[in-house]
Amino acid sequence: MMVTTMLLRSKMAAVKVAAGVAPHKGLKLMERYFSTQVLKSPLSLMSLDMPDIWAPPSPTDYCSPSSSPCNFSGQETAAVIDGKSIAEEIRSAIAIEVSRMRRCIGKVPGLAVILVGQRRDSQTYVRNKINACEEVGIKSLFSELPEDCTEDAVVRELLRYNNDPSIHGVLVQLPLPKQSISFLVCFSCIAIYLQHLDEEKILNMVKLEKDVDGFHPVNIGNLAMRGREPLFVSCTPKGCIELLIRSGVEIMGKHAVVIGRSNIVGLPTSLLLQRHHATVTILHAFSKSPELTTREADIVVTAAGVPNLVRGDWLKPGAVVIDVGTCPIEDPSSEFGYRLVGDVCYEEAARVASAITPVPGGVGPMTIAMLLANTLDAAQRVCDFN
Amino acid sequence: MMVTTMLLRSKMAAVKVAAGVAPHKGLKLMERYFSTQVLKSPLSLMSLDMPDIWAPPSPTDYCSPSSSPCNFSGQETAAVIDGKSIAEEIRSAIAIEVSRMRRCIGKVPGLAVILVGQRRDSQTYVRNKINACEEVGIKSLFSELPEDCTEDAVVRELLRYNNDPSIHGVLVQLPLPKQSISFLVCFSCIAIYLQHLDEEKILNMVKLEKDVDGFHPVNIGNLAMRGREPLFVSCTPKGCIELLIRSGVEIMGKHAVVIGRSNIVGLPTSLLLQRHHATVTILHAFSKSPELTTREADIVVTAAGVPNLVRGDWLKPGAVVIDVGTCPIEDPSSEFGYRLVGDVCYEEAARVASAITPVPGGVGPMTIAMLLANTLDAAQRVCDFN
Repeated sequence: MMVTTMLLRSKMAAVKVAAGVAPHKGLKLMERYFSTQVLKSPLSLMSLDMPDIWAPPSPTDYCSPSSSPCNFSGQETAAVIDGKSIAEEIRSAIAIEVSRMRRCIGKVPGLAVILVGQRRDSQTYVRNKINACEEVGIKSLFSELPEDCTEDAVVRELLRYNNDPSIHGVLVQLPLPKQSISFLVCFSCIAIYLQHLDEEKILNMVKLEKDVDGFHPVNIGNLAMRGREPLFVSCTPKGCIELLIRSGVEIMGKHAVVIGRSNIVGLPTSLLLQRHHATVTILHAFSKSPELTTREADIVVTAAGVPNLVRGDWLKPGAVVIDVGTCPIEDPSSEFGYRLVGDVCYEEAARVASAITPVPGGVGPMTIAMLLANTLDAAQRVCDFN
Repeated sequence: MMVTTMLLRSKMAAVKVAAGVAPHKGLKLMERYFSTQVLKSPLSLMSLDMPDIWAPPSPTDYCSPSSSPCNFSGQETAAVIDGKSIAEEIRSAIAIEVSRMRRCIGKVPGLAVILVGQRRDSQTYVRNKINACEEVGIKSLFSELPEDCTEDAVVRELLRYNNDPSIHGVLVQLPLPKQSISFLVCFSCIAIYLQHLDEEKILNMVKLEKDVDGFHPVNIGNLAMRGREPLFVSCTPKGCIELLIRSGVEIMGKHAVVIGRSNIVGLPTSLLLQRHHATVTILHAFSKSPELTTREADIVVTAAGVPNLVRGDWLKPGAVVIDVGTCPIEDPSSEFGYRLVGDVCYEEAARVASAITPVPGGVGPMTIAMLLANTLDAAQRVCDFN
């Protein structure tokens, strides 16, 4: 009983902070929620589900691009890590490998992409992936499902690709629509109801040998554990490490700070940096004084999705900065009315860091290159072709 | 080719450092090893397999108990986190739950333990687990296999317990013997060969629903990922967090340093602390200046297995210290000729920390209590009993 009460208290406090619920206000609701959750086991887990709402840790809104613009004075001294040209180099190498595979065994790697709904950004990402496949000679198949499709429809497509021997990599473009509208015909009446697409269930159904996105828990578990090898490592984290290695940055023994702990970037990046024997600190929205911790890092990888969160004075002179953030912000002077900015105030950081990735043209192109590399890897593994 | 060469260079450098190989000496051997490993894929992973050999980072051997004994002067001010009594409290609560289960549905939880070989410490741990089961009314089954048994024999026992509906938790006591001796009768001659027990393969075969040790990669992956829930969390890490929570230590937003990154303690502890929204830094044998990083921590969990590694001056005043280390060191004055010491120089730390676990009597008893809790959890889940 005592355990339950203590955990309950701790969980409630956590959720109140995260959800911005006043202590007195949401108490009854929270109590009911947790009493069913926690009493199930005397020693339940704290859930990671609380949203990471990044907020400036001090009254100065230094992370907001509007209230505190980047400081443009001084000289940019950091080397620019040119993700675009590094990615092109990798894609050329992959094209050569694919062509060798076709020549030697008459087979090419195959990638299948499932897109649900019509999010503009997702459509762009998927189009880029398919174009990239074409360029290097990888076969690609694409299924576009409507936003209101059923979970069964997604699963059916997934299983079709899982069982297709010409397909070596299957990916479901994230995020999936939160809810889809379904119709239930029951006796002579029609009920309209909202159906949830279970992301966890769908991703877990991707065949482990075709999980080129590396999002399956077995791949994440094996990435984390000593003595284990995941079949695939998520593309963006793998791209970050490639950029570091190809830029001659030593990782072993260095202090690396990863800002953000998402399943697709922050978490696998921190695990991968540890695999390269860095000392890793993971910062998230509940971290106190993130600027002080970041200032001690030799390597900073930031994937918070907050424009200009990392300012020049967050960095140790000579640090290496990998900026995974990609946020569109309004810019009337741009051709499209917006431009992409990262988590890092580039102009300031470039005056302090020794090397930095630009946005765009840094990590972004590497993600697709790594997807192609994973698909090639999958095909070579299945075909036992080296 | 360029990727391969760069990765190769980086990997070789890493292994040289880890193995203490002079740059010129092991080069040929390493080159051969990595050329087969790395060329398989243009973007291979750095392996975590390099041994974490903890070495003092400065000429003063502050981590060696013999060369620099603990400083006993000053006053101990830290509160002692009494793992023994907290564990007893939990065990009493579990006994009540087990008895309620028996009364209501006529069933009790069941735990099976497989021990291979005759390591003294493993035998003691297994005996303690079985005794603890008996005390709280959990049924226990025990299989003791000789050191030279085949992998098939271990797998057979495992599958038997996996399929036994009266058993809800199965654990294989680690470490498994590195090699077992086998005989091969082939035409009229007998060959003796050394056979390897594949720990990864064996642990992966434990039924997920019975993985009360929480060592399966799916459970580790789900512990790491946001929005996922592992079925079980490893016992020692779970015990550490319970000690913190029951001692009223706030974890959210605090800086926690985990010393050591083993699969069974360091890794899951770091993931669990993150789940509780701590800012976590993981230190290992390749970390530079671990004393400086540790000195910034509000919470220190140490599981390096190096007696007296963490000295008083490694700690921030008021830090909370959880010592998972348990090393037997010679002590002629003791009844058994040895005594157990942790990673922390207790006498020094108790003068700086606000709370600390003793060794023995801190984390140790919690590990078994958490094993019982996991087994109860497994049984209640299978029997749908709340």
